[in-house]
Formats: sequence, C-alpha cells, structure tokens
Amino acid sequence: MLSVEILFILLYECRILFYLRNRRNNHGREIMKGVVKKELIGNEGMVILDTVRRLSRRNAVDNLLRLIKKTHPADLGWVFRHLVPEERKNVFSVIAQTDLVGEFLSEVDLSIMLELVETLTPKFIVAIVKDMASDDAADLLEALPKEVANEIRDLMGKEDREEVDELLQYHPESAGGLMSPDFMALNEELSVGDAINRVQDRSEEMEMVFYLYITHGEEGQLCGVLSLRELLMHPPYRQLKNIMNPKVLAVTTDTDQGEVAHIVSQYNLLAIPVVDSSYKLVGIVTVDDIIDVIREEATEDFLQMAGAGKDKEILLKSTVDNAITRAPWLFASWLGGIITVFIVTSFNRELQQVLALAAFMPVVMGMGGNIATQSSTIVVRGIATGRINMNELAKVIFKEMRVGFLLGGVYGLFLGILTYFGYSATTPNLGLVIGISIMLVMTLAATVGTFVPLVLRRLDVDAAVATGPFVTTTMDILGVSGYFLIAKFLLDL
Amino acid sequence: MLSVEILFILLYECRILFYLRNRRNNHGREIMKGVVKKELIGNEGMVILDTVRRLSRRNAVDNLLRLIKKTHPADLGWVFRHLVPEERKNVFSVIAQTDLVGEFLSEVDLSIMLELVETLTPKFIVAIVKDMASDDAADLLEALPKEVANEIRDLMGKEDREEVDELLQYHPESAGGLMSPDFMALNEELSVGDAINRVQDRSEEMEMVFYLYITHGEEGQLCGVLSLRELLMHPPYRQLKNIMNPKVLAVTTDTDQGEVAHIVSQYNLLAIPVVDSSYKLVGIVTVDDIIDVIREEATEDFLQMAGAGKDKEILLKSTVDNAITRAPWLFASWLGGIITVFIVTSFNRELQQVLALAAFMPVVMGMGGNIATQSSTIVVRGIATGRINMNELAKVIFKEMRVGFLLGGVYGLFLGILTYFGYSATTPNLGLVIGISIMLVMTLAATVGTFVPLVLRRLDVDAAVATGPFVTTTMDILGVSGYFLIAKFLLDL
Repeated sequence: MLSVEILFILLYECRILFYLRNRRNNHGREIMKGVVKKELIGNEGMVILDTVRRLSRRNAVDNLLRLIKKTHPADLGWVFRHLVPEERKNVFSVIAQTDLVGEFLSEVDLSIMLELVETLTPKFIVAIVKDMASDDAADLLEALPKEVANEIRDLMGKEDREEVDELLQYHPESAGGLMSPDFMALNEELSVGDAINRVQDRSEEMEMVFYLYITHGEEGQLCGVLSLRELLMHPPYRQLKNIMNPKVLAVTTDTDQGEVAHIVSQYNLLAIPVVDSSYKLVGIVTVDDIIDVIREEATEDFLQMAGAGKDKEILLKSTVDNAITRAPWLFASWLGGIITVFIVTSFNRELQQVLALAAFMPVVMGMGGNIATQSSTIVVRGIATGRINMNELAKVIFKEMRVGFLLGGVYGLFLGILTYFGYSATTPNLGLVIGISIMLVMTLAATVGTFVPLVLRRLDVDAAVATGPFVTTTMDILGVSGYFLIAKFLLDL
Repeated sequence: MLSVEILFILLYECRILFYLRNRRNNHGREIMKGVVKKELIGNEGMVILDTVRRLSRRNAVDNLLRLIKKTHPADLGWVFRHLVPEERKNVFSVIAQTDLVGEFLSEVDLSIMLELVETLTPKFIVAIVKDMASDDAADLLEALPKEVANEIRDLMGKEDREEVDELLQYHPESAGGLMSPDFMALNEELSVGDAINRVQDRSEEMEMVFYLYITHGEEGQLCGVLSLRELLMHPPYRQLKNIMNPKVLAVTTDTDQGEVAHIVSQYNLLAIPVVDSSYKLVGIVTVDDIIDVIREEATEDFLQMAGAGKDKEILLKSTVDNAITRAPWLFASWLGGIITVFIVTSFNRELQQVLALAAFMPVVMGMGGNIATQSSTIVVRGIATGRINMNELAKVIFKEMRVGFLLGGVYGLFLGILTYFGYSATTPNLGLVIGISIMLVMTLAATVGTFVPLVLRRLDVDAAVATGPFVTTTMDILGVSGYFLIAKFLLDL
C-alpha cells in the first residue's frame, strides 16, 4: 500500500538527494557535500520537520522510525527544538523504542530532555543511561529532580553507578564536570608493540583516540603524552617512557571550564587530560566540548550584556518565564528612570524658562548611552578574549576617554552649530549648551563604559553580568544631571 | 658575569617553577599543570612582559633570546600585544634571528604582524615565508601591500609560489581561505600495510594526522575517510577501499567559514576535508581554525550589535582610527536625535501646559530602548547559533510581543500608580498616561527589536550589523511620538 506517508518520505529523500547533490563517482559511491548538509539545518531541516510532524500526526510509526534512523541525532536535536511539546512526546515515544535514544538525548537541549524523560519510568531511564557515555549520563542525572536521580542511581549496576557518581561530584562548569572518563591511558613501562595491541583491543566506545596518555605506577599518575602517529614511528620493542613527550599540559578537575577552553584554544590542542590532586589521570576534555563551552560562554555574555539573564535556552522558555528572566534588569532601568524624573523635576524652573531644553534631552542622553554601550562592549569582549591587560587599566581608560572626547567634540560641534542657527533669535546660547553637553556627556560615557566592566572584573565579578544595565542606567542619570547643570550655568537661569 | 638580566631570568624561572607548581614524580620528570599555564597569560604573563621590556631596554640580546626560546609562540603573541611599537621592533629584531620567526608571526595579531614585517627586506621575508605553513604564508602575503607581496612572490621558489598562489585565489573567509594544503590523502587502491608505511614516512610538517582521507583515481577525488585507529584494526593486506567509510562530509572551497564552523561543531568533527568543484581533495580545515572562526564571529557580532564596527583588533587601533570606526553608528543615533528634537518641539504647546511630561520622557524611552535591546540580542544570538527557525518568524515575533506586553504592563502599572499619587493634585490623568505609555512602548519595542533582525536576516543582511543602532534609534523616535500622542489624547490637551 502506497500511503501518503511513504510518498512524503520518498519526496523527502528525493529532495535530500537533490539538495545534497549527492553524486556517485565511477565506483558508484556517494560523496556527500557538507556545504549542503548546512541547508539541512536551514531549508532542508524544514522538510524533515514538516515530515516528522505529518507522520506523527497520522501516527505512522513505521515511517517515522525509518526517517528517524536516517537522520543524524544532532539534526534530530534541532528538529525537536521546533516541535510543540505534544509532538515531541509523540515522536519521542517512537525514538524511545530504538537504540538511538541515548545518543539522541545527548544532542537535545536540556529543558527538552527533562520534559521528555519525565514521561519515562525510572526503570526505563536506567536502561537508556546504561547505553549513554558516562559523561552524558552524569549530565542527565544532574539535570533530573533529586529524588528521580537517586531512584535511578539505586537501580543502576554498581560499576556504572560508581563511574557516574565520580563525575557527579564535580561542578558542572569545571573540567571535572566536562570530562569524559573514556580515554586511552598506557603505562610508561609498556612497549610500542604492546601499546599498538591495546589500541586495537579497546572497544569502539572510546571518545577519541588521538593522543595516548602515558601514566606512571599503579596509581596512574600522568607523566607523558604520545600521538598515535608518533607511536607508529618507533620500533615495537621500545618502551613508551623512552619515546613519550614528558611535557604534557593538563588541568585539574576543579579548573573552570572557561580556563580549560582558553588553554585548549591557545595551544591548539585536540584534547586535554584532567588530573586529580595527586596527578592521577581521571579523564579528558575533548575539543568538541570546548567548542560548546566557547559558544555557550559567548551566548551568556551576549544575553548578560543586554540584561536578558544568561539562560541560553531562553527562546525555549514560556512567555512568563522569559519575562521573569528579563524583569530584574528592566527593574534597574525603571528605578533609574524614576531618579531621572526627580532630577528633571528639580530643574522645573529652568525648563519653564527655556522649554527647548526638553526637546534636546533625548539626543544628549542617547548619544551618551550609545557611546557607553560601544565602550563597554569593546571592553567586556576584550576581557573575555584576553585582549585586555588587566595591569594596564589606566591606559585603556584614558584611551577610551580620548575617543569619547574626539567623537563628542565632533558630534557636539555639529549639533551645537545647527542649534545655534535654529535658536539664535530666542536663546542664542542654547547652541553652546548642546555642543558642550554632548561633548562632556560622551566623554564621560566612554569613560564610565570602560571603567565599570574593568572594575567589576578587578573585583572578580563577571564583567558581562552587570555592565549593560548598570552602565546605561548610570549614564542616564549622569547625562541628564550634567546637561541641566550646564544649561543652568551657561544660560544664566 | 652575573648581570641584572640574568638575575631577572633566574627570578622569572623560579616564579614560573613556583607558580606552575611543577612537580617531579618519582622518576624525576616534570608534570606541567595547565591550570597554571593560564596564570602565565594573566599574572605570569606580566612577569614575562616586564622581563622582555627590561631586557629589551638594556639591549641584553642573549638573555632576551634565552627567554624567547623558552616561551611558547602563542604566549609571545600575547606579550607583543602589550608592548609599545618601539619595544616590538626591538624584540622582533631578536626573534628574527631565530628559526622561531615563522611560527611566531603566525601567532601574532595581524596589525602587529604588518607593522613588524614592514621593517624587513623582501629577501628576508621570503626566507621566513619558506619556513611557514603554506596557509599561514598565504595569510601573510594577503595582508601585505600588493607591491610588496608581488615582490616576495617573485623571489619565492616555483613550488612554494604555486602552493601559496593556489591558496590566495580563495576568499579569506571561505573554506579555501581557511584550509591547509598539508593533509594525509591515500589512494583507495593502497593496502593497509602501504598506508601505515606512508603515515610513518610523511614528514613532521603535517597539520594533523587523525583522519586519513581516501581518494580515487589520479585526480585525487575524495571518496572516503578512515581514522588512524581504524587503520590499525585491519590486517595489512586489506585494501583501503574495502575498509574506509565512504560517507565523508566535505565542504567546497567557496563554503563560507561560518558554515564550515557550523558543520564541524554540529557533527563534532576534528577536521573537515575541502574539495574543489570536481570533488578533488585540495585541503583540510582543522578544528583549531574553527575555534578561531567561532571566537572571531562572536566578537564581530558583539561589536556590531553595539555599533562599534566589526574589527576584532579595535583595541590595538589608534584613538583616531578607533573613533572613525565607531563614528558611523553614532551618526545614526545623532540623526535620530535631531528627529526627536523636531518631534518634541512639535508638542511644545502640550509640554508648556503639563511640564511634568518632560520629566517622564527619559523613563518611557529608556524602558523601551532596554527591552528592545534585550529582544534584539536574544534574536541575533538565536540566529547565530541556529536556535531560531526562520520559517516560524511569526511565532517568535508574537511571543516577544507577549513578553513585552507582560513586562510593559507590570512596570507601567507600578509607575502609573506612583505617578498618580505624585500628581493627583495637579494632573490626575498623568498616571494613566505614564502607565499606558510604558506598556505600549515596551510592547512595541519588544516587537520591533525582534522584527528588525529577523527581517534583515530574511533579506540576507547580517542581522548583527544593523540591528543595534537601527533598533535603538527607531525606538527613540517611535517611543517619544507615541508618548506625546497618548498624553495629548488622555490629558485632553
């Protein structure tokens, strides 16, 4: 029976074939072009998404299964982000029947994972967890409610439980929380030939066999590193300790993930070994996890700079949760706004005499706010990428001050001249007020915008957290005060 | 002779030893802890920096040389960022005498590299370029002024020149511009034993031997992939074509670097092969380059969102260049500011009657501007990380609209009530004006902040480029107009 679903799958496959421009070479083998794999996430992702939706709605389990098995788990993770909860539950019930479920859960966003796992019995979860890499399993248990996690732990085999428990003791944002315990370690006394045999024997589960870590003694203390290729360059009888590179970079389990990312990217590593306090090798952090860390930390910084919390899954949140995350930072600017009401009100007499002062308030404050945002963004990003030397704060601040003065001078001069001609009949000095205000406020704004994140950083506060809302609110208050004081003085009010 | 410089180096080494907590295990071998390597960039970096400065000032070439040889080129790159041009020239003249110069130049920031190379003769540069990896050499030639680059190309050996020329034809932000032509490719007809021999024979220059790419025919068309470890799992007589994985993801030379980064991180790859239009394997892009791309693109997005250009080296620029980069976006808000002057002026009569309206202008505009920044930041980042489905624009926009309405309602209500009590004697309706204005302006701001980047993206404009300044300026104009219209209507002015 040629159902509509099969038609859809056929159509989907044809489109994939077309879009992926899969070509067959003379031997009839496929060459997949990654370029086009990208479209799968864009336009082609939509085809999968639509097909998954349609099949799920019609409850076409077999066809859904066929499609799911063809799709890369990472792409399924993308698809799930765009399904509604009801559809997710439906499709997941199909995935849960396959052995893909562990790998799939590792690729899906955390909040979605929790939502899906909620529907499963602890017994079933245990079966899934068993098939997962132990670092992914630990992440899952970490995210689950405590009682559920404990129930699952009790049902797990002793060995699995111990492995997961060991990982769970570390902070999720430390090297310990990030590492995988599946690595290739070889005792330094082994010969090259033995080592090659070990590499051949180890199961396919290994995260990545590229660096071979060499350990010393029964404790397994890290003492060297060797690439698989270097191993092949030596005769089989030679001992590893004589050919290994003893200068191996490592991090400890409590190293912050940002620092791990920094080291891996600074020295172009593919993986970094993790040791405990006695230098015993306990895991490795691979570069693909580092990429996730770099992405996540950039996203957090972005959101924090805009005062939108730091939850990278904010787009998946409900309207109310989303609003609650963003409310505190808006509260800061609300409070700042009330303060400006009082400031402006205190200049009521001056405002009454020269009403035009009100009209120029937005441009003075806007120019100040914008240059402050520029400065603080440059500084926050400079701190994050290590481009700012924290011992040369004064140099950075003075430079931004000069930039603010220059830009403030130019834009102040131009607007001052325009204002002078516009108001020469009624308030000839207004041009001077506007020009000087813009120049001073912009200089001050560039300085404050630079100063605040640097000082926060010095106080060991995450510069991105407080900079955005704090700087804009501060500048609103300082800007409006400065503006009216200059006006009062120069207009002789 | 124990000069002061030697003392400094000794001191430096002791501190390194101390801070790196280098321990020796029972065999007396050093274990370097990466955790602490980080400090080298922070506090310890300062020690190197100071020592380099001091030695350079005293012209202590030998000691400088000793220090330089001990320092990782990546760390030297950091040090150079913080030297003044005069010091850089001095220290570089020492590095230029060593064979580290090629590696060093690959680690240094582009603008500094140009500054340093300026002092060298083309002949000398050719000698350096010869030792560099050909992708780094191409980057250097790309950055040099055209005449100098051509002069150098003429002096290069035919083979080197051809290799570099081939790389230079690609856009620097494409896979072709990013790739290295040093990779391990093996013909599919080879046996496992032959392949192992090839791996052993290849020089140390290889960028990374982890994936072995399998090619077909004389043309070298990509047809499969094999990891070094998989190679070891098979008997030596077996042919590669029978054991390779024919499903190899690849990109073409013209694939945008952002897409390459997306594929590598989505599918957790360590490298991706690059093919030309006839599927001939021409290079590989390794994951360390991908990390740089991800970092750079995040930095560009950050700067662009704040209207501060997109030059990641902005901190290294002179005050004037820095100001020039930032001027255009401030011009947008300057122009918007002039428009608000006219808008406010057109409501002069209303303002004269209720002067308090001026005092509330900043808070209404500020709340609008801040929620617009939140929304647009969430959306711009969501687009960059692939978390937003471009086919569901309406859904995203409506959700942000609801969030804006909710937050606007709450903050509007509170400020409206406060205002009502503050002005109940003179203008009892003012509370209503403020409450409704904040609610409407914030709803509108969240909508505009979401709409603008999504539409820009649809029009294939980089969402980050124009969003920041455009959204804030637009909201200033819309906010102030809406506010006065509501006031005019509700206060019956």
